[in-house]
Amino acid sequence: MPGKRIYFFEEGNKDMKDLLGGKGANLAEMKRIGLPVPEGFTIITKICLDYVKTGKWPDGLKEEVTQAMHELEKRTGKKFGDRNNPLLVSVRSGAPVSMPGMMDTILNLGLNDESVEGLAEQTGNPRFAYDAYRRFIQMFGNVVKGIPHEEFEDILNKYKKEEGVHFDHELSVDALKKIIQEYKDLYKEETGEEFPQDAWKQLEMAIEAVWKSWNNPRAIVYRKANNIPDDMGTAVNIVQMVFGNMGNDSGTGVAFTRNPSTGEKKLYGEFLINAQGEDVVAGIRTPKHIDELEKEMPEIAKQLKELAELLEKHYRDMQDIEFTVEKGKLYLLQTRTGKRTPQAAVKIAVDMVKEGLITKEEAILRVDPNSLDKLLHPRIDYSSNPEVIAKGLPASPGAAVGKVVFNPDEAKELGDAGEKVILVRPETTPDDIHGVIASQGVLTSRGGMTSHAAVVCRGMGKPAVVGCSDIYIDLEHETFRVGDIMVRKGDIITIDGSTGNVILGEAQVVEPEISGEFKELLDWANEFKRLKVKTNADLPGDAKVAREFGAEGIGLCRTEHMFLGSDRLPIVQEMILATDDEERRRALEKLLERQRQDFIELLEVMDGLPVTIRLLDPPLHEFLPDLTELEVKLTELKLTQGDPEEIRKLEKLLEKVKELKEANPMLGHRGCRLGITMPELYRMQTRAILEAAIELKKKGKDPRPEIEIPLVAFVEELQYLKKDILDEAEKVFAEKSIRMDVKIGTMIELPRAALIAGDLAKEANFFSFGTNDLTQTTLGFSRDDAGRFIRSYMELGILKFDPFQTIDQDGVGKLMKMCLEDGKRANPELEVGICGEQGGEPKSVEFCHRIGLDYVSCSPYRVPIARLAAAQAAIREKRR
Amino acid sequence: MPGKRIYFFEEGNKDMKDLLGGKGANLAEMKRIGLPVPEGFTIITKICLDYVKTGKWPDGLKEEVTQAMHELEKRTGKKFGDRNNPLLVSVRSGAPVSMPGMMDTILNLGLNDESVEGLAEQTGNPRFAYDAYRRFIQMFGNVVKGIPHEEFEDILNKYKKEEGVHFDHELSVDALKKIIQEYKDLYKEETGEEFPQDAWKQLEMAIEAVWKSWNNPRAIVYRKANNIPDDMGTAVNIVQMVFGNMGNDSGTGVAFTRNPSTGEKKLYGEFLINAQGEDVVAGIRTPKHIDELEKEMPEIAKQLKELAELLEKHYRDMQDIEFTVEKGKLYLLQTRTGKRTPQAAVKIAVDMVKEGLITKEEAILRVDPNSLDKLLHPRIDYSSNPEVIAKGLPASPGAAVGKVVFNPDEAKELGDAGEKVILVRPETTPDDIHGVIASQGVLTSRGGMTSHAAVVCRGMGKPAVVGCSDIYIDLEHETFRVGDIMVRKGDIITIDGSTGNVILGEAQVVEPEISGEFKELLDWANEFKRLKVKTNADLPGDAKVAREFGAEGIGLCRTEHMFLGSDRLPIVQEMILATDDEERRRALEKLLERQRQDFIELLEVMDGLPVTIRLLDPPLHEFLPDLTELEVKLTELKLTQGDPEEIRKLEKLLEKVKELKEANPMLGHRGCRLGITMPELYRMQTRAILEAAIELKKKGKDPRPEIEIPLVAFVEELQYLKKDILDEAEKVFAEKSIRMDVKIGTMIELPRAALIAGDLAKEANFFSFGTNDLTQTTLGFSRDDAGRFIRSYMELGILKFDPFQTIDQDGVGKLMKMCLEDGKRANPELEVGICGEQGGEPKSVEFCHRIGLDYVSCSPYRVPIARLAAAQAAIREKRR
Repeated sequence: MPGKRIYFFEEGNKDMKDLLGGKGANLAEMKRIGLPVPEGFTIITKICLDYVKTGKWPDGLKEEVTQAMHELEKRTGKKFGDRNNPLLVSVRSGAPVSMPGMMDTILNLGLNDESVEGLAEQTGNPRFAYDAYRRFIQMFGNVVKGIPHEEFEDILNKYKKEEGVHFDHELSVDALKKIIQEYKDLYKEETGEEFPQDAWKQLEMAIEAVWKSWNNPRAIVYRKANNIPDDMGTAVNIVQMVFGNMGNDSGTGVAFTRNPSTGEKKLYGEFLINAQGEDVVAGIRTPKHIDELEKEMPEIAKQLKELAELLEKHYRDMQDIEFTVEKGKLYLLQTRTGKRTPQAAVKIAVDMVKEGLITKEEAILRVDPNSLDKLLHPRIDYSSNPEVIAKGLPASPGAAVGKVVFNPDEAKELGDAGEKVILVRPETTPDDIHGVIASQGVLTSRGGMTSHAAVVCRGMGKPAVVGCSDIYIDLEHETFRVGDIMVRKGDIITIDGSTGNVILGEAQVVEPEISGEFKELLDWANEFKRLKVKTNADLPGDAKVAREFGAEGIGLCRTEHMFLGSDRLPIVQEMILATDDEERRRALEKLLERQRQDFIELLEVMDGLPVTIRLLDPPLHEFLPDLTELEVKLTELKLTQGDPEEIRKLEKLLEKVKELKEANPMLGHRGCRLGITMPELYRMQTRAILEAAIELKKKGKDPRPEIEIPLVAFVEELQYLKKDILDEAEKVFAEKSIRMDVKIGTMIELPRAALIAGDLAKEANFFSFGTNDLTQTTLGFSRDDAGRFIRSYMELGILKFDPFQTIDQDGVGKLMKMCLEDGKRANPELEVGICGEQGGEPKSVEFCHRIGLDYVSCSPYRVPIARLAAAQAAIREKRR
Repeated sequence: MPGKRIYFFEEGNKDMKDLLGGKGANLAEMKRIGLPVPEGFTIITKICLDYVKTGKWPDGLKEEVTQAMHELEKRTGKKFGDRNNPLLVSVRSGAPVSMPGMMDTILNLGLNDESVEGLAEQTGNPRFAYDAYRRFIQMFGNVVKGIPHEEFEDILNKYKKEEGVHFDHELSVDALKKIIQEYKDLYKEETGEEFPQDAWKQLEMAIEAVWKSWNNPRAIVYRKANNIPDDMGTAVNIVQMVFGNMGNDSGTGVAFTRNPSTGEKKLYGEFLINAQGEDVVAGIRTPKHIDELEKEMPEIAKQLKELAELLEKHYRDMQDIEFTVEKGKLYLLQTRTGKRTPQAAVKIAVDMVKEGLITKEEAILRVDPNSLDKLLHPRIDYSSNPEVIAKGLPASPGAAVGKVVFNPDEAKELGDAGEKVILVRPETTPDDIHGVIASQGVLTSRGGMTSHAAVVCRGMGKPAVVGCSDIYIDLEHETFRVGDIMVRKGDIITIDGSTGNVILGEAQVVEPEISGEFKELLDWANEFKRLKVKTNADLPGDAKVAREFGAEGIGLCRTEHMFLGSDRLPIVQEMILATDDEERRRALEKLLERQRQDFIELLEVMDGLPVTIRLLDPPLHEFLPDLTELEVKLTELKLTQGDPEEIRKLEKLLEKVKELKEANPMLGHRGCRLGITMPELYRMQTRAILEAAIELKKKGKDPRPEIEIPLVAFVEELQYLKKDILDEAEKVFAEKSIRMDVKIGTMIELPRAALIAGDLAKEANFFSFGTNDLTQTTLGFSRDDAGRFIRSYMELGILKFDPFQTIDQDGVGKLMKMCLEDGKRANPELEVGICGEQGGEPKSVEFCHRIGLDYVSCSPYRVPIARLAAAQAAIREKRR
């Protein structure tokens, strides 16, 4: 004995989405609270799955539908399939989760060659009746039989041309009749069957078509992309037709209860007089702004406004409403939570708290943290239709416009001279940093979301598009090519780091506005979040931005960026190439001067907040020229009888470059390994940090540096360096006659470090998960190289997400959890955070909250996102 | 109330080593079983630690020593410090664990200016008495006061010269008296004190010196190197002196109960008539072979033989005995388990089982598996004093002699022509494989124990010395330099892959002998071991060797080696450079032919045993030329107006090389990532494997291939490829009308794979730990680059072992254990093994046994080692 399979609208409510689908449940809810909704009923979602599986109607269901139709006839006083007073219905899909436009709907069902005449007589509007019939055949043919729209449109256009008219509704009845005949001929030709004249047959076929549409290719793709399970099914809604195209006392429209672009509390939308819903969407006639409804249908406008307010109060969220006016009577055909821009989302959430509609917690949960990114960067106004020529990875959000430059030196030169340039490179290296700094943005043809260009630009809040494999760069001729388009040095392009788009010419750019509501929402976030949010910043400017965005300290200051300025690199090279200790000592002395100044500035900006400074991490060869370039240059010099002095110099350099060359630099002689084998380096950095802090302390400031050791795998490494650092600290304290606390911690960026966390914790004040490197080593993915196969993996469904953007919870996350537990058990005072790229990504923030981290640290522009995500995580946890 | 601190020899036994030290316990044991041991007593080890800590004698101990000395006086009928009948003693160190030569010993203690005269009178041998006194002063001065030996030797030599004599014992009494005076003057000059004349004072100072010697630098270093704890301490043995230098009825010697070189069951050793023990060691007089003792002292010889047999039966192991004959009476001064060569160890162990002395288990435990390595390779006879010019890492054991060649092509040419060559390269790459194959051995100046050269050579059982940073290779001029020595192409060198030595010229090489006892021992090992032992072999020849050594299958066949032959590489490059599918298909077709033949040969050799075949693993760029070399070549060609056709060809190649170039190939587009993005590759290999197996099956053979997927990190990868492989298998089965079982497994070589083992196990028939890569990723150590800092780390004590040779149990091992447990829980049928380099290293084998692996797989020449180690692990486990 099957359970209840058909619900009339008044039998359901908004919480029955799983059973009735979203549309059905909302129609039921509106009916339940007394709103003007057409009569109708819903076939529950489960039936769809049964049908898809068996290809057959469940036993007895056809009879139940017939019965329900008879009830509908009774309620409407019309008769289904009748010539004189025909009941017309729409058959609409509606899944539990909104899948806009993915599945099918058929309108005007119940019309046939006879009832169309009855409708014409009854309404006194033959044009309306024949147009409705025409639309019905077209929709039915397309949805049920898969006949391409274009074939119908070709016929329609032929007659529009013949009659010299522009809009459908200008066609004569005569033309419409001819069109109907040709439509029916087309139908027969394509299907081998006559167009069904039996309304009951039409209904049966339409219902089946909706069920089948659950598994049409675009629906499957959409579900996959949006993580919607395949075993939900769609409900089928059979709704009495109401017509907005019955004359000038009729109309149809869409209304948002608040402005979905700005969030302003004012009805927003569009309508068309004498039109059916699809006309608004189709964009053939230009709809009017909802404000004008007051002039054209004042009573309806008033009623709509009241209903909108009622709906919003009822649903406690901004609603997106479809309405139709049939001969002066308003019907609501659908309501759902309205999509909105990030700005609007923030404003609406905050306003609704103030209106007492929702709580602060709810407001926080209403805003998607990811969407905030768009609020924090200049963005491109796509309404101006810019010419997008290629698409790469959206590596660092924001829009940038400038002249194409291929050479980093030239970028610096032009940039320093005030020109706006975009640096275009196959990929960037630390050698190019001066060019990156001087540019508005960076475009690379290689590398992934965590390639050098991506990481550096995100850190600086500078737009970047990377791994744009569509473009072919010819460095020699200073051009790049996309298909047939050739872009030359000096040409202007725009890059959109939020979408990955590369645009030819100067696109319209919109500057970001950080509204009062945004600030307010973030303040509330702080009331709820448990995680601290710090920032990854190497430069005082970045640190300042981050502090303004609410950063509670620096979680990662990468000192290598301080080794790369054009005033530093030569000294670093001097140190590397030094042939005796004295030479090396002199170079280190010079670096010490500069490092100290760097730290003074950084610690001053972050006064009173913790600043975690990571000692030098990259391998030394990163500071030297590229081997291949050097070899080529030498070959050239030799073959062209170049300056012997220069040849000798380059040969010496080459020898060192070869000596330091590594097969896999990521797993090479870097991090603490360098600190241990070249102890004077970390001692110099320790001294620079402490001397800087002491100088500020003497000025009455409150500097809080913490020293972090990178790439630790063995507890013995940590012990060894800790002793070295503390020894150097004692020397500095003795010289300056002042002491301070020295906190020493370690990066956890190698699986082994996570595995021996208990031992490490006994030696450390803090752990910081370097999830970029930890992901590289745990997954065996080189972030510089993985772009190629990660994309294939995502297309094949092997990867559901990019593990360099979102923490791989099953792998890396499992290690993190083990590490955290072992670490805190061994040392309850241990502070544990994350400073990898994922630290600013909402899902990852939620994970960090759940496993019990103390803080996340992310690039300055992601601090607000992380704050909101942290608050959401805390609120969700409380609710569970 | 302190416990017993002094034990007379008869109070102890051989099991009291912790308390009495090794020497004391063995002296006690000998005494206990009635052997002729001089009288004496032992101060227990713990006292040493007390003294080292406090710098003071424990309360009451001095009195106890005095009492024990009086007892000794009573037993010997002599008096300590007496002029006429002086008791002389030796004061000897003796730790619980043998630390040969690390700590101090003083002989003839008790002599002074007066008692020396008494001794002369008493023995009627003034020369003996004054020589004894001289020796005592020299030893005491050196051991107690640190006066350098050389200063005493200078005085001694002066008089030898003066008297025109060659040996000490030829000096006149007069000269000896003068020497004694000069010795005492030297003592005073160096210490500011008179040489102590009070025997009790001498004793006190000597005991203290022995205690202090526990912490002398060489003892500390020795303990560290041999993992001996610092908190054992040394016992002090006070032993009545017996003299072998009292005339021609006296003598001294060392005897092994069996031949320590060959294991032959026959007394072996040396003796000197009229000499003290140190004279045998010092090598000034040439000792005689023990066989001659029969002629010179037939009674003593007979007694010694009997005692030796008794001792061996008692200790149930070959003994190393020190003996002294004083005036016709035999004394045993020490017995200990004798050191022996690997051959001897094997023979003695097997013989003793046959003699019923020990059990098979004991025999197995008696042989150090590591030492077997030496039995399996030709080795250098260092007694011929070859000229060692440099030392690198002992990467692949064995000795090889040949002409130096720098170019792999030339190596192949000469090698094919029958010349013996040694390939010398900075490092090798897969491109050089033909040169490696054609050489006797390989010497590289870079790379670690798991560099390409090392891995490939070990796999082939070919000697290799790698990472020999002492040598500077000049490829251009085809020379290498070590210090001042210049070695040119064509010069002959010898390399010793067992020690890392590089020898100028042709050294004497000893060929390996695998004795019957060796085979017997390994057969016994099979009776006890639980682990299966498979081999890593890619070529039929290697597989054959391994099978002869007892391999129970192939645990890892690396198919990439099949892509590298000179008949393959061009086809592989054709495939990579293919611009359309058809071209690629053709190349794959050609490879299929060859791969099939490879597998037929391999499966035939391993008929009836499982053969795990790993699908292609390395990134494609490994099959293309080096970027730098290519760029240089192109630059040259362009600058010298080279052939335009060739330039075009190279430019095309360069484009591909650049496209495929990776920053970290180890973490790049390789392994299953390649299999997924280039599916035709694995399909071809699957087909080759199955077609080969079917062909053999049709011939009545029993081929057992298993297909292994490399570098899996996600279960989705395994699922995806498994489906692909099974699809291809079905095609082959349909074509050939024959079916067979297809076992599919995965390498576990990334931390993530170990972390999600439960999921993987559900999809796999077997897991194989690729501990080379798993170590690289878990520790973040690139095996190609880590050599540099691993060496520093071991010197600094940060690393206790090379994790590429011995499994890092705390890190990698922890992951392995988790993985194994999760895997077996999810799939109890799962077979789990290891195929990394460590699979043949005894400590690692023991670990693999302990955590419950099913098999280890190692290079052919390590199979016997692994078998023995596996048996030892099983026996030790049973005993616990």
